[in-house]
Amino acid sequence: MRDEDLIWKPGKPEKVFSVPIVDVYRVESRSPDGKQTGTYYRIKPKDGVIVVPVVKNEEGVFFLMVRQWRHGSEILTTEFPSGIIEPGEDPAAAAARELREETGYSAGKLELHRVIYQNPAIQYNTCHLFTAENPVPAGGLQPDSDEYLARVLVPAERLMAEIGTGEFAHALTAAALFFHLQAEGRIR
Amino acid sequence: MRDEDLIWKPGKPEKVFSVPIVDVYRVESRSPDGKQTGTYYRIKPKDGVIVVPVVKNEEGVFFLMVRQWRHGSEILTTEFPSGIIEPGEDPAAAAARELREETGYSAGKLELHRVIYQNPAIQYNTCHLFTAENPVPAGGLQPDSDEYLARVLVPAERLMAEIGTGEFAHALTAAALFFHLQAEGRIR
Repeated sequence: MRDEDLIWKPGKPEKVFSVPIVDVYRVESRSPDGKQTGTYYRIKPKDGVIVVPVVKNEEGVFFLMVRQWRHGSEILTTEFPSGIIEPGEDPAAAAARELREETGYSAGKLELHRVIYQNPAIQYNTCHLFTAENPVPAGGLQPDSDEYLARVLVPAERLMAEIGTGEFAHALTAAALFFHLQAEGRIR
Repeated sequence: MRDEDLIWKPGKPEKVFSVPIVDVYRVESRSPDGKQTGTYYRIKPKDGVIVVPVVKNEEGVFFLMVRQWRHGSEILTTEFPSGIIEPGEDPAAAAARELREETGYSAGKLELHRVIYQNPAIQYNTCHLFTAENPVPAGGLQPDSDEYLARVLVPAERLMAEIGTGEFAHALTAAALFFHLQAEGRIR
């Protein structure tokens, strides 16, 4: 099937809902064959960054992670440092800033692996996925006034065994780990 | 830091927006130390399933995927078969149903790998991730009336090289592939 048999023709989006974390748009879209028009909703959260910080020391290899309350799912999670790209901010600068604020570590060299869509079926936010090799301690945490964070060094073997379960069940943490491991040549 | 120093105390959620694909709730939540209260929004899309169908034949190993227009991001993607769990539906039944509808293949044995949160920071929907080994052709596609789908057999080597880029830039497709590969013992 050719692409032109799959591509819809969206009309002008109309904003129907807006709060600080998300806007929702309604759009009338015409089917590829022109035979029907449908009403669709597009969820627009903000674009984000995730950084996989790898700490190697005499005790082994660790991932530097953040344990925190997540208001969306009302659970405690342990995740890679992450956050929103501020308006006009460079994604790599956002990654370095979030790492510094949430863990107190300075990024050193950041490598961008991928820019992924969080869920293109219903949303149109992206996430930039970085690795920070050997970040260095640079002072205390600088959380936002309503952030209560714990910095955690998670042994690499533990995360590999538990990713996708319990406190590590965040899809984007799993995706970030995947592309980090792929870049390291650890996936056959 | 102890868990009780991280856990917020959410109040009663109030629904502030609702369209077919998503509800949004507002909740007042009290900080772990009791010193502040904040207003938070929780986005509730529907829970979903993704199934990684692996087809092995004399020409090699392929992933059975679906190319389609995604109204959220207004892009064409190539993804693993996926969809929403209907009210009261068993997740494995939903996976088998979506695979059948979107590809015309019958699932055979389904293996559940993980149940992940799509983005616990702002959302509270989950996704069940399955593998279907050696699904078998069972007739034509059965798309919804507004679905225009192309079934694609993607060579395994191609998906491994291109996952997270171009038409394969869906975070949940990457997460599903990751847990499939992990179950196969292909991640060191």
